[in-house]
Amino acid sequence: MKESERQVQQITPKSEDFSRWYVEIVQKAELADYTPMKGMMVIRPHGYAVWENIQRSLDSRIKAAGHVNAYFPLFIPESFLKKEAEHVEGFSPEVAWVTVGGKEELEERLAVRPTSEAIIGHMYAKWIKSWRDLPVLVNQWANIVRWEKVTRPFLRTTEFLWQEGHTCHETAEEGEAETLKILALYRDFCETELAVPVLTGRKSLSEKFAGASMTYAIEALMSDGKALQMGTSHNLGQHFSKAFDIKFEDRSQTLQYVWQTSWGMTTRTIGALIMVHGDDSGLRFPPRIAPVQVVAVPISIGNWKETVLPVAQAAVEALRGLGLRAELDAREEATPGWKFSEHEMRGVPLRLEIGPRDVKAGQAVLVRRDTGVKETVPLAALPARVPALLDEIQAGLMAQARAFLEANIRDASDYATFKDILENKRGFVRAPWCGDAACEARIKSETMATIRVIPLEDKDAATDQPCVACGAKGQALAYFARSY
Amino acid sequence: MKESERQVQQITPKSEDFSRWYVEIVQKAELADYTPMKGMMVIRPHGYAVWENIQRSLDSRIKAAGHVNAYFPLFIPESFLKKEAEHVEGFSPEVAWVTVGGKEELEERLAVRPTSEAIIGHMYAKWIKSWRDLPVLVNQWANIVRWEKVTRPFLRTTEFLWQEGHTCHETAEEGEAETLKILALYRDFCETELAVPVLTGRKSLSEKFAGASMTYAIEALMSDGKALQMGTSHNLGQHFSKAFDIKFEDRSQTLQYVWQTSWGMTTRTIGALIMVHGDDSGLRFPPRIAPVQVVAVPISIGNWKETVLPVAQAAVEALRGLGLRAELDAREEATPGWKFSEHEMRGVPLRLEIGPRDVKAGQAVLVRRDTGVKETVPLAALPARVPALLDEIQAGLMAQARAFLEANIRDASDYATFKDILENKRGFVRAPWCGDAACEARIKSETMATIRVIPLEDKDAATDQPCVACGAKGQALAYFARSY
Repeated sequence: MKESERQVQQITPKSEDFSRWYVEIVQKAELADYTPMKGMMVIRPHGYAVWENIQRSLDSRIKAAGHVNAYFPLFIPESFLKKEAEHVEGFSPEVAWVTVGGKEELEERLAVRPTSEAIIGHMYAKWIKSWRDLPVLVNQWANIVRWEKVTRPFLRTTEFLWQEGHTCHETAEEGEAETLKILALYRDFCETELAVPVLTGRKSLSEKFAGASMTYAIEALMSDGKALQMGTSHNLGQHFSKAFDIKFEDRSQTLQYVWQTSWGMTTRTIGALIMVHGDDSGLRFPPRIAPVQVVAVPISIGNWKETVLPVAQAAVEALRGLGLRAELDAREEATPGWKFSEHEMRGVPLRLEIGPRDVKAGQAVLVRRDTGVKETVPLAALPARVPALLDEIQAGLMAQARAFLEANIRDASDYATFKDILENKRGFVRAPWCGDAACEARIKSETMATIRVIPLEDKDAATDQPCVACGAKGQALAYFARSY
Repeated sequence: MKESERQVQQITPKSEDFSRWYVEIVQKAELADYTPMKGMMVIRPHGYAVWENIQRSLDSRIKAAGHVNAYFPLFIPESFLKKEAEHVEGFSPEVAWVTVGGKEELEERLAVRPTSEAIIGHMYAKWIKSWRDLPVLVNQWANIVRWEKVTRPFLRTTEFLWQEGHTCHETAEEGEAETLKILALYRDFCETELAVPVLTGRKSLSEKFAGASMTYAIEALMSDGKALQMGTSHNLGQHFSKAFDIKFEDRSQTLQYVWQTSWGMTTRTIGALIMVHGDDSGLRFPPRIAPVQVVAVPISIGNWKETVLPVAQAAVEALRGLGLRAELDAREEATPGWKFSEHEMRGVPLRLEIGPRDVKAGQAVLVRRDTGVKETVPLAALPARVPALLDEIQAGLMAQARAFLEANIRDASDYATFKDILENKRGFVRAPWCGDAACEARIKSETMATIRVIPLEDKDAATDQPCVACGAKGQALAYFARSY
């Protein structure tokens, strides 16, 4: 390939300016684009195809865990948002308000949903009467609006897409079990489908969802050393059921408030795919989530349309017959070299090259996007080799990401080390913390790092060491990081 | 079954009060519910499962026709809506406006999308440069808000869900071909999946989409004799490309405006399923779209849990293994009779009954929801018989709906007959029309009927008869009806 054909030359190297690299990839790979409205993006077909794969896979997991989908209104009356005190305080600075409908000023402002606990809580109060109606296990796929000041495509946008689960249970124990079950489901989804390893645990109280008793999260490490929250699962306790009067007659005919959970994952996961797996040549999508898993590029020399093209077509058809997302790039206006770069940039995990000599030899060349390694495979062996290679690529990306994560979890027992790691190495710092919110706030203001998770395992959580920042008695080992 | 167990007694008979019957079914079958906000509904899990089936099936057809999905912003700046004169005039009375974001008044009001031509047009102008970029074949699944005065669940709601296709083409002919291709796709979808036969054709100019050159529609007949528009496909010509400056360099290096189409189907199709197929006992879902296709009800007598239940479970598992949506209703707190009524009301196409005697005889009873006909089938024959019966039910519902439609298309050559049919028989009236909008408006004000479609076939469209209302020279045979 001529260097002049490399469209990736147009992308700023990752090591030079990570933020610029990210924004350029998003646009050049046509994942998303800016609109004239601040913070609102268009998810273009190549990006939306990733979201469709995420949706299909996550939705089937959510359903297999017993949940059903529903759809609640986009708007929430202002008075509803105000019913749960912490909730309104947390969300009201971020709300977009509808004040005019048709030609008329509305009597009450309507919030464009920043999350749906309030409207769903109102409906649950109407529907739930008895313990026989429980558990209620409902999920919704929807768009969400939060008026953000600083935005970045996929990572933080005024409008984003997500799923939000909202469940009701008879007992506190069942609510907690559901919260942790979803946390595990999210972790499995991220690691299996996205090849993104995560840390799991609870948030500190200052980082929890506005209105929750406890927030649990999964956190991933981006390749610039900053953390990204990939999903949250909230134990809502009885905060919303008391605010919205969601009561049921229990097994002993006593009226009780239900115990609730809510949990969500968003289009931000696409940002993680870019930042965990991408390299200087562009995206590297894990095969299980890639819009196109294999692209066949015929080498356009001589009478290739009569000789090479039919063979490439047949190979693609055979792979599609196996259920693979395979495509043929037969464009005449682009050279093979240009196509190679373009599909590399767009993150296609595997490239299949076929030229005239390959046709004569009854073979094709497979090129891995993750490692660049090439192998020559007999045409007849493609239907066996391609799926196996895709599995290897999925595993390879996961292994690489896990190694990076593990290499970037560092322990600190004193504040100087703690600050040095955050300033010069980034990644996660595991350190004892006193449990005090004021100390946590001081760490944040001095290091820009927050507690990402406090692991659930007793062995990690218990600590006898003094707090890394204030020296008071440590209460937990926490993972700190700078984050998106 | 004891009559006292019939939960359907709570539903107003269809023949007595169709509107009340409709609203009661929607709520009692838990398809949807009202919210405190006028015209905004919740789509409950049973209703949303229908929408998911519609989505899956319609989406695969749209993709097979070469389209890809994307996602554009929920908000549209007011200035964008105003760029196409007819468009803003048509939609501005129905727009919900966001005027406050976070704590601040916005400089420019943002429309909550009533349709997305304006924001998509703006982006297309940015993306499209050359004929090589065409055609652009993009679809979006989204929520839409229109501030309606009179609302009814599914049929007309302030917020609804839909898909909207937005395509760009090199020539007027390609735009027209796309418009008609989608019209045919919609027709095939409605008739094959929903078992709802439709009339197809163009709208009169007074009924076309605000901003289109021509609107085509599919129209179905509800069982109360009123028409329902099931989907529309618009040839936008160059109206929006001129307003939004969407130009491309054509094959002879000349700048041209693109030719566009847009088209949509909505959650209103669920309303059609209710009104076309429902009866006094409740819903009758066509199997291809039914959330549950077959429900097994064990007859709970004696030691049924040891004898009947395992057999019912095995039967359900076997049906699921075939890919059928089969469920077991093993609830202990409900009697078989109560369950029969409930599943009838919820529209399950096929019921499988198994009692102790059936177990001994190695058989089960299948009861069709559409006809009530029962048949006894050996357990071993269920995996063959159930799918075949579901196909028969799908075909039976379609045949019944088609017979009703055909029996309710009547010709009128004079205005007295025309009015008599609309007043006393309802349904469609096929009549010659002069083509004059004033005459059309007079017919509407005098009979409450509008032109639903003007068929495309020349043989139907051409007419030598005088206009049914004014007696002027007829220009087309049109289908008139009262409608939702």
